[in-house]
Amino acid sequence: MSQWSDRAYALFEEQQRDRGIDLAWVKEKLVRLQIETPSWGYGDSGTRFKVFQKVGVPRNPYEKFDDAAEVHRLTGACEAVAIHIPWDKVSDYQELKSYAESVGLKIGAVNPNLFQDDDYMLGSVTNANASIRRKAVDHLLECVDIMKQVGSNALSLWFADGTNYPGQGHLRRRKRWLQEALEETYRALSPDMKMLIEYKFFEPGFYHTDVADWGMSFQAAQKLGPQAEVLVDTGHHALGTNVEHIVSYLLDEGKLGGFHFNSRKYADDDLIVGSSNPYELFLIFYQILDAHLDEDVKVRETAENIAYMIDQSHAIEPKIPAMIRSICNIQTQYAKALLINHAELKEKQENNDVLGAENALRTAFEIDVTPLLLAVREERGLPPDPMRAFLESGYQERIAKRGVGGSSW
Amino acid sequence: MSQWSDRAYALFEEQQRDRGIDLAWVKEKLVRLQIETPSWGYGDSGTRFKVFQKVGVPRNPYEKFDDAAEVHRLTGACEAVAIHIPWDKVSDYQELKSYAESVGLKIGAVNPNLFQDDDYMLGSVTNANASIRRKAVDHLLECVDIMKQVGSNALSLWFADGTNYPGQGHLRRRKRWLQEALEETYRALSPDMKMLIEYKFFEPGFYHTDVADWGMSFQAAQKLGPQAEVLVDTGHHALGTNVEHIVSYLLDEGKLGGFHFNSRKYADDDLIVGSSNPYELFLIFYQILDAHLDEDVKVRETAENIAYMIDQSHAIEPKIPAMIRSICNIQTQYAKALLINHAELKEKQENNDVLGAENALRTAFEIDVTPLLLAVREERGLPPDPMRAFLESGYQERIAKRGVGGSSW
Amino acid sequence: MSQWSDRAYALFEEQQRDRGIDLAWVKEKLVRLQIETPSWGYGDSGTRFKVFQKVGVPRNPYEKFDDAAEVHRLTGACEAVAIHIPWDKVSDYQELKSYAESVGLKIGAVNPNLFQDDDYMLGSVTNANASIRRKAVDHLLECVDIMKQVGSNALSLWFADGTNYPGQGHLRRRKRWLQEALEETYRALSPDMKMLIEYKFFEPGFYHTDVADWGMSFQAAQKLGPQAEVLVDTGHHALGTNVEHIVSYLLDEGKLGGFHFNSRKYADDDLIVGSSNPYELFLIFYQILDAHLDEDVKVRETAENIAYMIDQSHAIEPKIPAMIRSICNIQTQYAKALLINHAELKEKQENNDVLGAENALRTAFEIDVTPLLLAVREERGLPPDPMRAFLESGYQERIAKRGVGGSSW
Amino acid sequence: MSQWSDRAYALFEEQQRDRGIDLAWVKEKLVRLQIETPSWGYGDSGTRFKVFQKVGVPRNPYEKFDDAAEVHRLTGACEAVAIHIPWDKVSDYQELKSYAESVGLKIGAVNPNLFQDDDYMLGSVTNANASIRRKAVDHLLECVDIMKQVGSNALSLWFADGTNYPGQGHLRRRKRWLQEALEETYRALSPDMKMLIEYKFFEPGFYHTDVADWGMSFQAAQKLGPQAEVLVDTGHHALGTNVEHIVSYLLDEGKLGGFHFNSRKYADDDLIVGSSNPYELFLIFYQILDAHLDEDVKVRETAENIAYMIDQSHAIEPKIPAMIRSICNIQTQYAKALLINHAELKEKQENNDVLGAENALRTAFEIDVTPLLLAVREERGLPPDPMRAFLESGYQERIAKRGVGGSSW
Repeated sequence: MSQWSDRAYALFEEQQRDRGIDLAWVKEKLVRLQIETPSWGYGDSGTRFKVFQKVGVPRNPYEKFDDAAEVHRLTGACEAVAIHIPWDKVSDYQELKSYAESVGLKIGAVNPNLFQDDDYMLGSVTNANASIRRKAVDHLLECVDIMKQVGSNALSLWFADGTNYPGQGHLRRRKRWLQEALEETYRALSPDMKMLIEYKFFEPGFYHTDVADWGMSFQAAQKLGPQAEVLVDTGHHALGTNVEHIVSYLLDEGKLGGFHFNSRKYADDDLIVGSSNPYELFLIFYQILDAHLDEDVKVRETAENIAYMIDQSHAIEPKIPAMIRSICNIQTQYAKALLINHAELKEKQENNDVLGAENALRTAFEIDVTPLLLAVREERGLPPDPMRAFLESGYQERIAKRGVGGSSW
Repeated sequence: MSQWSDRAYALFEEQQRDRGIDLAWVKEKLVRLQIETPSWGYGDSGTRFKVFQKVGVPRNPYEKFDDAAEVHRLTGACEAVAIHIPWDKVSDYQELKSYAESVGLKIGAVNPNLFQDDDYMLGSVTNANASIRRKAVDHLLECVDIMKQVGSNALSLWFADGTNYPGQGHLRRRKRWLQEALEETYRALSPDMKMLIEYKFFEPGFYHTDVADWGMSFQAAQKLGPQAEVLVDTGHHALGTNVEHIVSYLLDEGKLGGFHFNSRKYADDDLIVGSSNPYELFLIFYQILDAHLDEDVKVRETAENIAYMIDQSHAIEPKIPAMIRSICNIQTQYAKALLINHAELKEKQENNDVLGAENALRTAFEIDVTPLLLAVREERGLPPDPMRAFLESGYQERIAKRGVGGSSW
Repeated sequence: MSQWSDRAYALFEEQQRDRGIDLAWVKEKLVRLQIETPSWGYGDSGTRFKVFQKVGVPRNPYEKFDDAAEVHRLTGACEAVAIHIPWDKVSDYQELKSYAESVGLKIGAVNPNLFQDDDYMLGSVTNANASIRRKAVDHLLECVDIMKQVGSNALSLWFADGTNYPGQGHLRRRKRWLQEALEETYRALSPDMKMLIEYKFFEPGFYHTDVADWGMSFQAAQKLGPQAEVLVDTGHHALGTNVEHIVSYLLDEGKLGGFHFNSRKYADDDLIVGSSNPYELFLIFYQILDAHLDEDVKVRETAENIAYMIDQSHAIEPKIPAMIRSICNIQTQYAKALLINHAELKEKQENNDVLGAENALRTAFEIDVTPLLLAVREERGLPPDPMRAFLESGYQERIAKRGVGGSSW
Repeated sequence: MSQWSDRAYALFEEQQRDRGIDLAWVKEKLVRLQIETPSWGYGDSGTRFKVFQKVGVPRNPYEKFDDAAEVHRLTGACEAVAIHIPWDKVSDYQELKSYAESVGLKIGAVNPNLFQDDDYMLGSVTNANASIRRKAVDHLLECVDIMKQVGSNALSLWFADGTNYPGQGHLRRRKRWLQEALEETYRALSPDMKMLIEYKFFEPGFYHTDVADWGMSFQAAQKLGPQAEVLVDTGHHALGTNVEHIVSYLLDEGKLGGFHFNSRKYADDDLIVGSSNPYELFLIFYQILDAHLDEDVKVRETAENIAYMIDQSHAIEPKIPAMIRSICNIQTQYAKALLINHAELKEKQENNDVLGAENALRTAFEIDVTPLLLAVREERGLPPDPMRAFLESGYQERIAKRGVGGSSW
């Protein structure tokens, strides 16, 4: 590729300048795009039918950080790592934090687990049993405490709570219990901490999910206060849902806290982000980057402070390559969205020029951003092709000594 | 049927008393169930492929009221009739009101039409063109004025506004224009008026709909104030959506204003309510009747003041029979839901008895409520079988003189 | 209930005779309705997030048969039990067969497992690796051999084979490999054996499933010959799919081999059959019972030889009660469908009387068949309420000694 | 754009040669890609809520051909035009044929209309009324006769037939009536004619559609014989359906006759092809182009003889620009698919290299094919940007004299 990459970039630069794109701004945005990877994404996961075990999967939180550090070394985009409690439970969180820093990382969001203890079979914070609700809230408070120890500023909440049959649970009582749990947890947060509230259309609840859509996350967050925001998992919607519309709505309300990126064709398939319908990812970034330009400072600040996180289930993929691929897919669509000519688009929109506006947006999507990504990586001293660099690094061979049977969920 | 209906009711009564059901309360609730029918439901409608014209379809608002009066005469449940402006535009609304009263009816919700004027092709209150937005708001204000003339206390708002292509419209600007329009309209309401804000997943917007889900309706209403509430059209959701969960959520927040009833298997099919998945209708009424028993007075009052309305497209059905069938389907599922033993259900729920709770709820659905409905109708002096009574009444033959080519949308 | 059940049945009988229903025929059909339960339905199962373990779950195939025998003792409807290889692998299949017979059961369909061996991660009969394909076919042949040993006449095939990403597999090559595997297996069948080919919309394949819909099952079976038929799992369709239409289509083509019953609201939720949308189950039985009356003997024979089987995942339910509930739900909807007045329905259909035809069908669904089911059970010496009989039997307490950690998948 | 387009193409050429792509073959394929446009796509259409009328819409079949000729003049890809009877009914079909030829066109598929006559409200070939079925078959035969007059070799059949309510129609009888109608029509075909049978998930039938999925089209065609094939309308599937899998399946069976291209996000939205999820269109072309390389001559011939047709509803778009945009979108995705390195892809697939195979395919999608399309157009003497050429041509201004109120459906 190298023999023509310089010419490719020169041509790209010329083309974009002709289009009126400020490439310095584009590059700066690209350089600053940070995506948190989840510790559990390096371990084994699967479907309800089978978790296939892979050689070299990390056996403890420290090895997960090793793998995450490798992804960050190659991409320069993944400094923070989300942890999951108790999957990443350790006796000394100061030590975990220090270890992360020693390999060039920091700890990102803390994710409580309220769905794998036997007590939570019929709900955690919405369980009809008050002592189980208490236990669940205590775990939430424990996680806030861990946040303080590891220097995390985001509590990322997904509630698997729901029911499988009509009548099984009392929906309004469960709604109130949920809010009570959130309120007690919210009060424990330090002022610099965010609470991110995720919603999900279904699964594992197959009749109802207590936090089923963005509206329920939003309203819960609204009642709590400014530190509570909505977390959008791209796979957690009914088929057909216009996710970028929800993103734009939350931006306008100043309540978009972050993303769990992944992709899907059917349900919550948790595939590699951008692999199923790449245009959708581009359209999400269009909404976000457009909000960067909003006249309202609150909207701009919301857009600039989104926590981008990956949350996928690599059931058949090699773990580290899957993560690298995910990062590259995000960078690709983000780069395309950075090339939108907002002035042209706005003019077409204001003139109700349907096809002209669609074309103005689509033009950016059709651009091959490979030369741009290569240039940015080279400028930063990163490998131009992170996947190839990984495959040639010998890292996978070195971790093979871990054997099979590492961490899984 | 008559020869054994008395015995059937006697047995029914005994069975329900054994179950601990208060039949006097049940009957009172049934008697008080009023469902508004829409004037346009008596006219021709169809699909984008064809509007089939029927003999005897009303040619003007007055004939629509005649038909609605016939439905009310036979069911005793449909005193109010929703009107649609300009479909029901008349020169003298006092006269229209008087006519309605003269045939035993009153005028229910007023529905503005913001989707059939050529100007609205690319949006009404969210059109990029300010003068079209102005025109749309003026129409909303005109409808508030008509409300005052006809004695209506509900403004029922559905916005067909949306876009077909990514980039076509600017989502956040459109969101703000929508809110501005609502606010201006809200300020024009009298204190006894409600504004009901409907949402819709898609169609006629095929990329995005400005008010796409309950969360967007809710947040718009929340900002406006207590007279604004959410209108749930049962067909306006993504497939799989748990509609009764949304209903319960809105009840708990005190923001459920009303329903547009219909049923569907696929998209917004606008079929006869209760015909596609009758259990879903039962489950919606379960949520509502459970809210009637809430300890929170606001929840109770919300549940007791829901505006039940029909909004269907009778593309192939004879119009008046379709309406009668719809009313009977609603009464059937409402009656079943009235037979839920809430004490038993609550006990099972509190004990996390999954199958027991499901069974407690389902038991009510399995009851044949025909004897109950017959008894209530007889006590009220109504025909026991409204459909048969209609078919035998000669009404259809009388309106045949109207010919074909009456009202349609 | 007992004090008025006789009167209830007498009234029911009178009502149905007035409707022209032949109750002797109805009862005979009900008595002959047999539903196969799956051995794995008695063990632990769950979602990808967690398999909750229950006390008393069987620890081996023999204990699964014990539980199945209890269900059959209480319902009289579940003589056959499907087995899953290798989950039910034993050293001596003759002994397994004898054990089944000793507890009043027989062995039903044999189900190969081609999705839990590590080799099958990227496909079994459609794996790009020829030696894995060979291994998979050998397992299919092993299962045919087991069929001969246990006296089973149905090979029930579900292929989890599929891909997660575009390009991952070559779709046409995989299609041909599948057909080759089926052909080799088909040739091994004895003349009295059936091969039932299941299809599934998605999961665990999240991009494509090699046998994705009824058309692919059908065409595979068509090429194989008369012993191959389609197996319909009610949960394996895209949302909105008209399952009863597919059922009627397969009946007309003489290719409907059997059902895996369960219910769902979203994806393949594997909930208790009839719990999510009971009307759909009724409509399936309407198609089947209508085919019982077809003038074409092939259609009639197909309808009369359907293998009814349950295939659910009882993630949160007690296992035996879940199975009893499933059987009762099936009997309820089947009984309602038996009460359809086909002559009336046909007349309305032939006259293009839309509402009349719909009403003729719906009338049967609205009937409370509890008196009928009670009467049939009493006539057969079965407990009138199988669930209550189980809960009072002490069986659950006796199997508690098995502890936790029994079979699961 | 012109100042750097030569350099862009030179670089493109070098890059693709490095990838092992045979650009001569690619260009030849691109030149030979012909897409039929539908006469009705130039007229007004809309949603059930409103058909917005546009200035300049053709008033008769001849003007539709004028517009189609303009599209062909600008794109070189649209020689054939599909007609719809009776929308394009003329007294002299020879004259229509001659007119088409005089403007550089030929007549493509003939499309009967069996859904807009009042008689067809409850079905055409599947109507319970035998005389309506007869009328419908007579119309099919009339269309075959018109085919002979206009030199068309494809009869394109879409049946709107279906029902709205359970019980409304007898599904198996309707299935048989449909087959009878197809058989009588099939017998009337000349040996060089194809019958293309379309299927549709739903709409306007909202309970069931007689030809609901590819399996039903396929089995109908299979029974008829080799001249009958399946027509895939990309918008006629349940959400989530893997359309390219169906395409590959039909190719392998030698039964893929053609496409109706359009795109959608929700139901059958009939938007501009490639606008909603462009990657899906690319994946469809991947399957087709892969089949071009099949070792089986039947598969190759099927792939090479696909009838590509557009079928959209331009509810808000200017008609001719919408058509040009559609053609360009198809060319773009087709061009990308032509750049797939099949040898590399095959090697990755055979090695079960999940991420490698996905990347091999995706790489082609990421390529910007603008330089290639420009080069091919220039070589053919076509305008490099057909849309701009149209907007600058003055054609739209010239047809404005037609006024509003032209053809619509």
